[in-house]
Amino acid sequence: MTKNSKLWGGRFEVATDQVVADFSASVHFDSRLYAEDIAGSIAHALMLGDVGVLASADVDAIVGGLESIKQEIESGTFVWSSDLEDVHMNIEARLTELVGDAGKRLHTGRSRNDQVATDVRLWLKRHIDEIVTRTRQLQQALVDQADAHAATIMPGYTHLQTAQPVTLGHHLLAYFEMLDRDVARYKDVRGRTDVSPLGSAALAGTSYPIDRSMTATSLGFGAVSANSLDSVSDRDFAIEFASAAALQMVHLSRMSEELVLWASQQFGFADLGDGFCTGSSIMPQKKNPDVAELVRGKTARVNGNLHALLMLMKGQPMTYNRDNQEDKEPLFDSVDTVLACLDVMARMVPQIKFNSEAMRDAALAGFSTATDLADYLVRKGVPFRDAHEVVGRTVRHAQEHGITLDQIELKTLRSFSAEIEDDVYGILTLEGSVNSRSHTGATAPARVRDAVADARGRLAD
Amino acid sequence: MTKNSKLWGGRFEVATDQVVADFSASVHFDSRLYAEDIAGSIAHALMLGDVGVLASADVDAIVGGLESIKQEIESGTFVWSSDLEDVHMNIEARLTELVGDAGKRLHTGRSRNDQVATDVRLWLKRHIDEIVTRTRQLQQALVDQADAHAATIMPGYTHLQTAQPVTLGHHLLAYFEMLDRDVARYKDVRGRTDVSPLGSAALAGTSYPIDRSMTATSLGFGAVSANSLDSVSDRDFAIEFASAAALQMVHLSRMSEELVLWASQQFGFADLGDGFCTGSSIMPQKKNPDVAELVRGKTARVNGNLHALLMLMKGQPMTYNRDNQEDKEPLFDSVDTVLACLDVMARMVPQIKFNSEAMRDAALAGFSTATDLADYLVRKGVPFRDAHEVVGRTVRHAQEHGITLDQIELKTLRSFSAEIEDDVYGILTLEGSVNSRSHTGATAPARVRDAVADARGRLAD
Amino acid sequence: MTKNSKLWGGRFEVATDQVVADFSASVHFDSRLYAEDIAGSIAHALMLGDVGVLASADVDAIVGGLESIKQEIESGTFVWSSDLEDVHMNIEARLTELVGDAGKRLHTGRSRNDQVATDVRLWLKRHIDEIVTRTRQLQQALVDQADAHAATIMPGYTHLQTAQPVTLGHHLLAYFEMLDRDVARYKDVRGRTDVSPLGSAALAGTSYPIDRSMTATSLGFGAVSANSLDSVSDRDFAIEFASAAALQMVHLSRMSEELVLWASQQFGFADLGDGFCTGSSIMPQKKNPDVAELVRGKTARVNGNLHALLMLMKGQPMTYNRDNQEDKEPLFDSVDTVLACLDVMARMVPQIKFNSEAMRDAALAGFSTATDLADYLVRKGVPFRDAHEVVGRTVRHAQEHGITLDQIELKTLRSFSAEIEDDVYGILTLEGSVNSRSHTGATAPARVRDAVADARGRLAD
Amino acid sequence: MTKNSKLWGGRFEVATDQVVADFSASVHFDSRLYAEDIAGSIAHALMLGDVGVLASADVDAIVGGLESIKQEIESGTFVWSSDLEDVHMNIEARLTELVGDAGKRLHTGRSRNDQVATDVRLWLKRHIDEIVTRTRQLQQALVDQADAHAATIMPGYTHLQTAQPVTLGHHLLAYFEMLDRDVARYKDVRGRTDVSPLGSAALAGTSYPIDRSMTATSLGFGAVSANSLDSVSDRDFAIEFASAAALQMVHLSRMSEELVLWASQQFGFADLGDGFCTGSSIMPQKKNPDVAELVRGKTARVNGNLHALLMLMKGQPMTYNRDNQEDKEPLFDSVDTVLACLDVMARMVPQIKFNSEAMRDAALAGFSTATDLADYLVRKGVPFRDAHEVVGRTVRHAQEHGITLDQIELKTLRSFSAEIEDDVYGILTLEGSVNSRSHTGATAPARVRDAVADARGRLAD
Repeated sequence: MTKNSKLWGGRFEVATDQVVADFSASVHFDSRLYAEDIAGSIAHALMLGDVGVLASADVDAIVGGLESIKQEIESGTFVWSSDLEDVHMNIEARLTELVGDAGKRLHTGRSRNDQVATDVRLWLKRHIDEIVTRTRQLQQALVDQADAHAATIMPGYTHLQTAQPVTLGHHLLAYFEMLDRDVARYKDVRGRTDVSPLGSAALAGTSYPIDRSMTATSLGFGAVSANSLDSVSDRDFAIEFASAAALQMVHLSRMSEELVLWASQQFGFADLGDGFCTGSSIMPQKKNPDVAELVRGKTARVNGNLHALLMLMKGQPMTYNRDNQEDKEPLFDSVDTVLACLDVMARMVPQIKFNSEAMRDAALAGFSTATDLADYLVRKGVPFRDAHEVVGRTVRHAQEHGITLDQIELKTLRSFSAEIEDDVYGILTLEGSVNSRSHTGATAPARVRDAVADARGRLAD
Repeated sequence: MTKNSKLWGGRFEVATDQVVADFSASVHFDSRLYAEDIAGSIAHALMLGDVGVLASADVDAIVGGLESIKQEIESGTFVWSSDLEDVHMNIEARLTELVGDAGKRLHTGRSRNDQVATDVRLWLKRHIDEIVTRTRQLQQALVDQADAHAATIMPGYTHLQTAQPVTLGHHLLAYFEMLDRDVARYKDVRGRTDVSPLGSAALAGTSYPIDRSMTATSLGFGAVSANSLDSVSDRDFAIEFASAAALQMVHLSRMSEELVLWASQQFGFADLGDGFCTGSSIMPQKKNPDVAELVRGKTARVNGNLHALLMLMKGQPMTYNRDNQEDKEPLFDSVDTVLACLDVMARMVPQIKFNSEAMRDAALAGFSTATDLADYLVRKGVPFRDAHEVVGRTVRHAQEHGITLDQIELKTLRSFSAEIEDDVYGILTLEGSVNSRSHTGATAPARVRDAVADARGRLAD
Repeated sequence: MTKNSKLWGGRFEVATDQVVADFSASVHFDSRLYAEDIAGSIAHALMLGDVGVLASADVDAIVGGLESIKQEIESGTFVWSSDLEDVHMNIEARLTELVGDAGKRLHTGRSRNDQVATDVRLWLKRHIDEIVTRTRQLQQALVDQADAHAATIMPGYTHLQTAQPVTLGHHLLAYFEMLDRDVARYKDVRGRTDVSPLGSAALAGTSYPIDRSMTATSLGFGAVSANSLDSVSDRDFAIEFASAAALQMVHLSRMSEELVLWASQQFGFADLGDGFCTGSSIMPQKKNPDVAELVRGKTARVNGNLHALLMLMKGQPMTYNRDNQEDKEPLFDSVDTVLACLDVMARMVPQIKFNSEAMRDAALAGFSTATDLADYLVRKGVPFRDAHEVVGRTVRHAQEHGITLDQIELKTLRSFSAEIEDDVYGILTLEGSVNSRSHTGATAPARVRDAVADARGRLAD
Repeated sequence: MTKNSKLWGGRFEVATDQVVADFSASVHFDSRLYAEDIAGSIAHALMLGDVGVLASADVDAIVGGLESIKQEIESGTFVWSSDLEDVHMNIEARLTELVGDAGKRLHTGRSRNDQVATDVRLWLKRHIDEIVTRTRQLQQALVDQADAHAATIMPGYTHLQTAQPVTLGHHLLAYFEMLDRDVARYKDVRGRTDVSPLGSAALAGTSYPIDRSMTATSLGFGAVSANSLDSVSDRDFAIEFASAAALQMVHLSRMSEELVLWASQQFGFADLGDGFCTGSSIMPQKKNPDVAELVRGKTARVNGNLHALLMLMKGQPMTYNRDNQEDKEPLFDSVDTVLACLDVMARMVPQIKFNSEAMRDAALAGFSTATDLADYLVRKGVPFRDAHEVVGRTVRHAQEHGITLDQIELKTLRSFSAEIEDDVYGILTLEGSVNSRSHTGATAPARVRDAVADARGRLAD
């Protein structure tokens, strides 16, 4: 590279060290912003024409040239050069090759600082929409399974101890709720991303009579940023997106953890499908829940990306510093990872075969209706805390004799509390238990069906 | 402690190891939830009375007892016991002491799992409001300083290199914008926190005919949670708050970094006020910007808290696991730290004395109007990229001769570009430069005054 | 507080704002460094006497005064004041009260910058030793259990799928190895902590003829730091400790995860002991593995502390900045948390009752000897990859018929591979499988007993 | 892909979903382990031959085939297939193509679990050595500059306030010390990485009579791992490396922060060299310290990688889980980033031109000898704390009159303390100040020269 080939080389006496050029080049990752970069340049050029800064012939040449470049890129004929640093310089250099001096006029009244901020915001908006769509697909899969299993009984856990019987549909809809909050967060991030920094120029705005509303509108932005210094250095939208993505991955990691447990020989609650498992190179009997494990593992990288972005911005004085170039790889990686995980989960969930019998057996074995016995006693007038003590002793008795609660004789039960009568056996069944929890948000099959209907309504919006 | 003093001791044969009791106790930090815990219990008791589960005499006894306990706590006479584990058990045990069996009936139809989730949500809502108030105070201080310095000229920086002259008011309002986004995020978090989990009981809801809307309304919640399993294990609101807090601290760290720079002998742009600096135990001439440094440092702990909360929830199977007890200390610490930092910053900003002369001198020394020269050439018909080259050579000349751009003779200037004429000297002044940037979001004093008015309007809402 | 009560107040015209004083005070957490602070001051005073900077009468007064202060602190009569900022100023102010002008001479030739660095290093060295001791106790408990269960067979897992039978002793010793690496790391950190910064003064050393070797030796440091600027700003030792602690907690989180699984009704592999579990306020049958869950949860805070310390130091210019005050709380919290977790785990492990029958049943049910069948075929001359295919089909057959591998008839087995003969049934037993893995590091009971002996030797060192 | 093309496909009825295959493939990043994978396979094959498990003809075929494959890869003719999942399967499949059944026998007595652990450990050892070499180069550059500037005076800073004069050589050697600790940490990590897991097989070892010492020795490992279950799931070495790398980047971020400051117009302490700076696309006068900024920014990603690895392993039950596949990308990225940053810094440091005059002027302007005045007073018998007060008032006087300390008249000085005499002017010079700090680790030029000699000795080891 000759000394002056960099567009900023005028003042420099010594050429950039090649190691430095390689170290600071970003085109190997920011070239994926090409579509947004070209759209932003076209909007800028049209505006410059409209306000009289560019002649219409120049505008036409620029727009035509940029459209050609887009085709070159998409057809694979465009030659990216790391000596030209980044996506912006690559495209502009090619534009000048194609259209001459008009190309050199494109950068009038803007800077790479506002240009890249515009590109990334446009790119992120588009990808948030895609993430929301895929999240909706996963929610749809969960609702369908919940609908099919509205009355399937499984053990509900706290502390991974069998607690009370619940319905599988109710359990699956808990994840629907988590994902629904994720969507709400993504929409909030999108709103704060949907603000045009274009026209902030290097940092202070420009002396050209630009029309920032015009470029914002033509690019589909909902608003124009209020402060140019803030606009070129702000990466809040990337951090906020990375936070939402990290939290969504935590949700997916929880679902994955449960699928791994359920696919184990000890639980045996679910078969995740041959297509979504892999085998072992040494143990032919294995059917490994790799997809769930990988999703759980990828949670870590998306959280690492969030951490990187926050640490990146900590303590930076205004305005744009080159540190900010490091915003893109973690952002891109979080987007890619979340999209891939949602896709594979949304494909896997409908294929899961739940083993209702194993779930029911597990619920029966764990004294899961003990709370129902306590509630029975309370209804007979025993204070809750005393009832709790009675049931504790009853459970210990059953455990010592290796029987379930409904297998204890009435006489024995009455030795723990004289309030217990023959009607107690009715409340100790799994069905009795789940059906009795029938208020808003509770586990009764009827409530699950309501929740499914409500969820379908939310998805239809 | 005797074996049965724990309220759940019925089934256990061996008492809790004292080391375990100490290890798992939370009352030393969760006692600060007492007001919310009592409010939640009163709402629950009134509802149980309303739906006929509790006799009105019991309800009256419970409510009266809880109000007494609140007074005991606030007057400092309440005895907290770590053997009673947590805030909930401490208050319930005291209630039973005070009102007997009615106290034992309070826990009917609920669990500590939904109880603590309710308490923390109520507590966080209240503290988010306080954080928003303090953020507004800091924004107010920034707007007032921006108003006073709408036309004060300073060097605008990119890469910490003098880039273009900007107005100090414009610079300060960049922080106003960051804080405004913080407020918007806090409001979004508050909305997702404002959902009542009460009635989810241990995990599956309860067989009592509870009215969840009634308790939600009386506690001031905007909605009732949709899924009981999700409700008792969800800590999204804590994580989302911690994210918003971490990002706000990053903003404050940036402001702090700049204040530290500006207070240095080399910059000399600002005197932070004796009341907000500290001295040295060994170097009497020092005036250290400790407040700014501490705020910058505390950014780290608030980010650590976010990380801790995300890692805490990763891979947890449903529903409530004891891991979740670890949610409170990072949440409390982030709230406390953000409140303290906002408070001290809001007090310090109005006291800062800016050194306008030093700022102006710095802007003059750094060739900050070079861009204006380039724009001048473009207006004369030179393509932007060519103009950039001309100015690069001009700057190198000035630098080699130790002069500023407006000190170069016309003849010399014309040797770089024949397009330069005598009118060039008008555009090389600092005032000319900032006034020429007068579109939306740019640095011209007139635009700063518009932005101040707009900001005052936003604060008034 | 009057304007001049701060020891650095001479140059200041305005007193410290009370909010600032509260914001920047550290005595509420750094007072726990009192013993190290006093030891450091005594060493410094004796050295100043030795080199002739202090008169021996002053040295005697200082040493006597400091010893009295130590007694006051330990007997609870010392009055800590947050207006005196930190542990150093509190002790020095009291010293001057007690011994007059001699007290004012103590600070000759040092600064709080080297003083606090010395205190923290001494404190950390002491606590690393305590952590190593407790780690050794937990290792001891694991070795004892491994010894008792050298031949107890359980399913070995990969992907939480039953893979091959292993011995419980072998499994427990895997944690012994992790903890052994932790100890090695702690020892490395201790070595790099064991360097005296005392005498670096504020940043540049001092003009007094101090003897840094003398203070280092009398405080038990192994070396004197080489560069004063580095010494007052270096927090590597805190970060490196926090890293080692975070990794150890990850190890403990893995052990905890397994204990939670093993205590579940589905696994039923272990009873963690009533003394180490807690019950439910609503479900009397529950026996929750709270200790394991809390340890798993506390992993997050210790990782958050590491993150905070790294972020704290990122981008700090030299030398000491007030940000560094934020190093202590995360460091203290990591030390306290690790000590508490090790203590409770070391107490719990010996109490765990393993259910050998349940483990054996699980190993039998999961086709865990399939690899042995493959190896059998390879020994008969079948290439490994072909053998793997044969076994895959055999397992599918067994699974479809609901039988174990050794329940398949020879005729059927031979339909999968003609190489199979009657001797195959010998290698399909659990004992045959584990005994056959008898090389270094493998699972055979004989190797576990070797490993136990080796581990006991390492603990004895 | 046909159903059975995966080597583990025997038991599966349904082929892997293509989305799953793409999701779980790792060959796009783990192919860079090819050299280690082939070396490990050769060592394994030779050992299997030696113990009689493989015939020597098979061993020869395998070794020959693997060497051919290595050539194919290095000459670019090898065809990587993501359908073959990972580097191991790609190489093994090609081996079987080349040498037939012998290739299928290679996997006897091992698993991908111990294979990949072996590969990564070998790879990391090699790269740690490279990182140490590059760190040494950067240290060398620092020592050379320190040597040249042993007596160059600059302001020493605490709180970024001018504190005391120091020598630039002393300042630069502070970074030498940080890097020296980094090297020590890397060596410790290397030692714990230098342990062979090969032979641990899937998790439990193997029933073949393998000789683990033989493979360990031939691969250059210093030891054989002690526990097979630990060996296949352990990622401590990756985490510990990532910690050391994160801390080193924090050191580089501090150096970068200072270079950015020093290159600013306000400091003007250093010219980083045209070859290591870049210009602006809009502001021709800019000379941006991009390299330093990028290094500071890349600190964030390396810290994000550490966070990701710790979070990845948190709570994983034993032994190998597919989550672990996510260990490689953060590890590789940390290695690559650290290497690149060290390389570019080691090239840049020798090119930095320090502006000694600007540094001296800054030291003069900041009352940096105030401590010397205090020490002077103490030597005259004034207690240190009283001397501090006197100097505080003296500085305030100088500041109010816009003069330096040595410009105050003796009469005025004596009005602050009667102990001051005419000899005071000698101690207020910069040279007097730095020369007087001449103990171990202090800033006097003579001590810097000693430290340079010591540093050169350490580099020569």
